[in-house]
Amino acid sequence: MGVHDIKSTRRATSAKQEQIPRQETINLRERHVGPSCKLFFKADPVKIVRAKEQYMYNEKGERYLDCINHVAHVGHCHDHVVKAGQDQMAILNTNNRFLHDNLVLYAERLANTFPKQLSVVFFVNSGSEANDLALRMVKSHTGSKEVICQNHAYHGHVTSLMEISPYKFNKQGADGCPEHTHVAPVPDIYRGKFRDQDYPGEDLGKMYANEVKNIIEKMQAEGKNPGCFIAESLQSCGGQIMPPPNYLREVYKHVRAAGGICIADEVQVGFGRVGTKWWAFELQGEDIVPDIVTLGKPMGNGHPVSAVVTTMEVAESFKRTGIEYFNTFGGNPVSCAIASAVIDVIEDEKLMDHAAQVGEYFVCSLKKLQDKHPMIGDVRGHGLFIGVDLVKDRQTREPHTKAAEHAVSRFREEKILMQRDGPFENVLKMKPPMKFSKENVDHFISTLDLILEEIDAMNSLV
Amino acid sequence: MGVHDIKSTRRATSAKQEQIPRQETINLRERHVGPSCKLFFKADPVKIVRAKEQYMYNEKGERYLDCINHVAHVGHCHDHVVKAGQDQMAILNTNNRFLHDNLVLYAERLANTFPKQLSVVFFVNSGSEANDLALRMVKSHTGSKEVICQNHAYHGHVTSLMEISPYKFNKQGADGCPEHTHVAPVPDIYRGKFRDQDYPGEDLGKMYANEVKNIIEKMQAEGKNPGCFIAESLQSCGGQIMPPPNYLREVYKHVRAAGGICIADEVQVGFGRVGTKWWAFELQGEDIVPDIVTLGKPMGNGHPVSAVVTTMEVAESFKRTGIEYFNTFGGNPVSCAIASAVIDVIEDEKLMDHAAQVGEYFVCSLKKLQDKHPMIGDVRGHGLFIGVDLVKDRQTREPHTKAAEHAVSRFREEKILMQRDGPFENVLKMKPPMKFSKENVDHFISTLDLILEEIDAMNSLV
Repeated sequence: MGVHDIKSTRRATSAKQEQIPRQETINLRERHVGPSCKLFFKADPVKIVRAKEQYMYNEKGERYLDCINHVAHVGHCHDHVVKAGQDQMAILNTNNRFLHDNLVLYAERLANTFPKQLSVVFFVNSGSEANDLALRMVKSHTGSKEVICQNHAYHGHVTSLMEISPYKFNKQGADGCPEHTHVAPVPDIYRGKFRDQDYPGEDLGKMYANEVKNIIEKMQAEGKNPGCFIAESLQSCGGQIMPPPNYLREVYKHVRAAGGICIADEVQVGFGRVGTKWWAFELQGEDIVPDIVTLGKPMGNGHPVSAVVTTMEVAESFKRTGIEYFNTFGGNPVSCAIASAVIDVIEDEKLMDHAAQVGEYFVCSLKKLQDKHPMIGDVRGHGLFIGVDLVKDRQTREPHTKAAEHAVSRFREEKILMQRDGPFENVLKMKPPMKFSKENVDHFISTLDLILEEIDAMNSLV
Repeated sequence: MGVHDIKSTRRATSAKQEQIPRQETINLRERHVGPSCKLFFKADPVKIVRAKEQYMYNEKGERYLDCINHVAHVGHCHDHVVKAGQDQMAILNTNNRFLHDNLVLYAERLANTFPKQLSVVFFVNSGSEANDLALRMVKSHTGSKEVICQNHAYHGHVTSLMEISPYKFNKQGADGCPEHTHVAPVPDIYRGKFRDQDYPGEDLGKMYANEVKNIIEKMQAEGKNPGCFIAESLQSCGGQIMPPPNYLREVYKHVRAAGGICIADEVQVGFGRVGTKWWAFELQGEDIVPDIVTLGKPMGNGHPVSAVVTTMEVAESFKRTGIEYFNTFGGNPVSCAIASAVIDVIEDEKLMDHAAQVGEYFVCSLKKLQDKHPMIGDVRGHGLFIGVDLVKDRQTREPHTKAAEHAVSRFREEKILMQRDGPFENVLKMKPPMKFSKENVDHFISTLDLILEEIDAMNSLV
């Protein structure tokens, strides 16, 4: 009997509590899980055994308020979504080369949430697969592989996307910017190239869009044309960036005039998170219609389902290559049942209205706290996608990275799960499940108040 | 109220029967699903509403014998696998930045099925994500992006994999072979470069491996070194290819001598399908140990879960780039519970032994039928991964594409789901759920007998 015939002795059982002691979990992870896969709070990671709504529970039954898991969009383990998955997985789970009603009904339903030109859906498993497919479509539609992205952007972990993700390729040890990638400044009016304080009353959207225009002109001078412009509608990794008015309108105009098309990456911010609109690109105006929209994380409330939504024109160009697109798991009946149940909940529980109201209350509460704490340099957000930019000095806007680091760690002690991001990792990032309540906001605010007071009192962090 | 506020009227409900009439399903699909996503039997596609074990049922309740869905590895909607998913999805589904026992227990268990060097697991959602991640690891470990693949190979749908998939890039309208891709002949001893009939008694494995050696020497003459050799352990798209003995041993030797590493793509053929071994690369000998193995389709019995398994050495090289690898859905507790339940079933129901026995019976029965039908040029297979190469002439081995096309269509009328593949699309391809029984074999054989008799009688197909 060779080593391969040995029966594995330990099985994973969908237990309601932990199956092995915490230290053994850590040991096994070190032994058998890729070391590039990082844990939150590496020094003392959190073991989570169950979750419901906007709360997660560790192995001791301690409850954490979840401010970061936008993937659990309608709340962790939502009964309606769970039941949809449970029911469908018992009946059929197969590929999309067979006709199935879940696939087409969900596609119709999803298309109905978009401007009518965006009518064609391709189902995939992850945001990375979605953005990669979008790039393939760009190439077949425009003939160009030149991509304009934003600084600090992250669009996914596959090779083609690492190449258009400055958030990754600019890191030490990484490959740097490839020739076909062109990086525009992120339209951050707080600490970007053009700041509100420096250009009062000016059209910052247009100014940032002109940077894209400059890139296109430089490209054209070298005999190239843009394939596409791709951007998250609200950039997450840059530190919860809210582009100023006119930005997308002007950018899309420049890109299209040069023969390129426009991709809105809604993998993080889509599905009503911004409250007033289904899709964050819509915040820039009803006339803003991307050629391709990519969807992911919240789509299945944690289940691996994602999509590319595009126009029939782009889809037809892709078809004309003659290459079939087959995605083994994409659009299977279980994924579509779950994704459809997520939309049910968004509609039935009026979660967009809820996100709009709670989000506004959250931002107002943070702004009130800003009066007390000079460390809060900026508060920005739409719906339940909010950033708090911590600074050492309001005037210079010098980022207070250490304060953010300390805050995230202290929040964890207070049983609130938080993250920070941005090029200086000084931006507190809120993107909780959409069930997040005003009571949760109050709890968060009083905790943040406490933590900032502590930081004020600590000389080491000044 | 804008168009985006319109409530979608039709919901996908995990109904036990069809929700809309067949023609409406087709119409909606044409309107809202990417036209590059092809249906089986395009002219008259099959609508499947439920499936169990090795059977699928259409909207009229008609039963099809499933000979093609290797993804439904332990049988469609297996109770134990379904229950594992149902239970876990109600409790917790979150990302791998939190500690969770399912992740580490499954990783340990999976590693136990491999030679001990292959001890580190990276969780992803699809075979495409797995192969792309493998290529990223090759680059960080060897510094080279030169890839040696096999002719007719298909490794996935993302950009980086289309570039190493001759099955796709050689199609009309596609981009052709990129500079960093080097295509070796597929080790097909029936209709490849070196055929058994032309080299009786010779070491065809070594001869095919020498082709890889020649590629490496040519590469080196140009100042380049191979990053990796990648191949499905049994090539599917080439027409169910069984490499001759010594092939991998010799190839791995040449590749490693030149500083490259070796990837076994087990996305289609892994998890005991070949019967006598967990992994198809093991068929080539106990000393054969790839540096990276990629897994996919059958891993979750239809649920989107996949993995890269590698050595600590390769994993450490990847870590040293300093770039975190985060895959949103990869290794979530639901995916791991389901994947673990799949291994439970393989073990508890002794499906590998079953696949070995039924597979042998299948191949013997096909070989018997070969005595009667000269059209059956070759029968080849391991376990439940079998190919039947249809020919016009046994001596010349001229492929009988039309016969294969007709057969697949007739099988469908007889309520047997079949596929064909290979560069001439003349190879009948069997890769059924592992529950496939000897009775199913008998039924298949008698139907194939009937169909081949019909073809013999049809002048139009000669």
